[in-house]
Amino acid sequence: MAFPGYGAAPGGFPGAQQDPLYGYFAAVAGQDGQISSDELQRCLTSSGISGSYTPFNLETCRLMISMLDRDYSGSMGFNEFKELWGVLNQWKTLFMNYDRDRSGTVEPQELHQALTTMGYNLSHQALNCIMKRYSHNGRTGFDDFVACCIKLRALTDHFRRRDTSHTGHANFAYDDFIQVTMSL
Amino acid sequence: MAFPGYGAAPGGFPGAQQDPLYGYFAAVAGQDGQISSDELQRCLTSSGISGSYTPFNLETCRLMISMLDRDYSGSMGFNEFKELWGVLNQWKTLFMNYDRDRSGTVEPQELHQALTTMGYNLSHQALNCIMKRYSHNGRTGFDDFVACCIKLRALTDHFRRRDTSHTGHANFAYDDFIQVTMSL
Repeated sequence: MAFPGYGAAPGGFPGAQQDPLYGYFAAVAGQDGQISSDELQRCLTSSGISGSYTPFNLETCRLMISMLDRDYSGSMGFNEFKELWGVLNQWKTLFMNYDRDRSGTVEPQELHQALTTMGYNLSHQALNCIMKRYSHNGRTGFDDFVACCIKLRALTDHFRRRDTSHTGHANFAYDDFIQVTMSL
Repeated sequence: MAFPGYGAAPGGFPGAQQDPLYGYFAAVAGQDGQISSDELQRCLTSSGISGSYTPFNLETCRLMISMLDRDYSGSMGFNEFKELWGVLNQWKTLFMNYDRDRSGTVEPQELHQALTTMGYNLSHQALNCIMKRYSHNGRTGFDDFVACCIKLRALTDHFRRRDTSHTGHANFAYDDFIQVTMSL
């Protein structure tokens, strides 16, 4: 569809070319206008959002795409990318509040506080499982923090939908349990 | 404890030095006699078990350590490493049976068959979730296959322990659900 009078480029949409984010996106999306997980990895690494220029974890990129991939294409258009960018920046702000020594990593106690701030009410055992899984040499980097937030949010959503009586308990059939847990 | 008369090296145990695997292990384990996930990545990459010399996925290495990490140390001694090596070789044999064109990857249909051969009785939806998560450009490499096998085995074990009436249904409290799913 053309937008005569608005000057939108063929194949684009109004406003896309004025958006400063569009440059990051277009640089990696190529001709199909979609980015895959390895393209997202390059894009986020070059944007410097992780606070370092080491590559963003590819697993985290896969998780981010699956979080927003409503058409199950395994890739991401510009609108989904913009939405992701907004969420990532909220998480980045939260992460930096806890990274007081500006090392680009947070300590287990700080990860615990961040998750509590986000509203999760978890036991010490659950927090220990999470900290063990998402830390490396006892500290959690931004990309592991993002992976942790995405998984925790998705798993909590899945659980809540099955906890129909709001008792904090949910019944799963085996096949459903595997679908929920193996897709993340 | 010393083993006089058996000639065991200080800190070692009888037989370790005769084991051909010990060379791979000792080369990366360093002085503490334990390997962490990034040391395991180096070790498996240099062993060539993935069928290529591209680095073994670090997430898969973390999963492998957590699978056998009975003392929750986050690292792995030689006995655990030997056990892992045995399991990995079984999975490698199975994987190679399905990788008929010797590309080092299997197709979705072949991954489906491999999981069925391993005894998993899953719906098409569940298999699609798994294939989408553990494939890249429509194909699954050996390290993703290993990650998939470890997670599926661990999740099935957790589920079975909670399915006390053997009906294929299990009840989870939220905190328990998060512990089971976030630690993998």
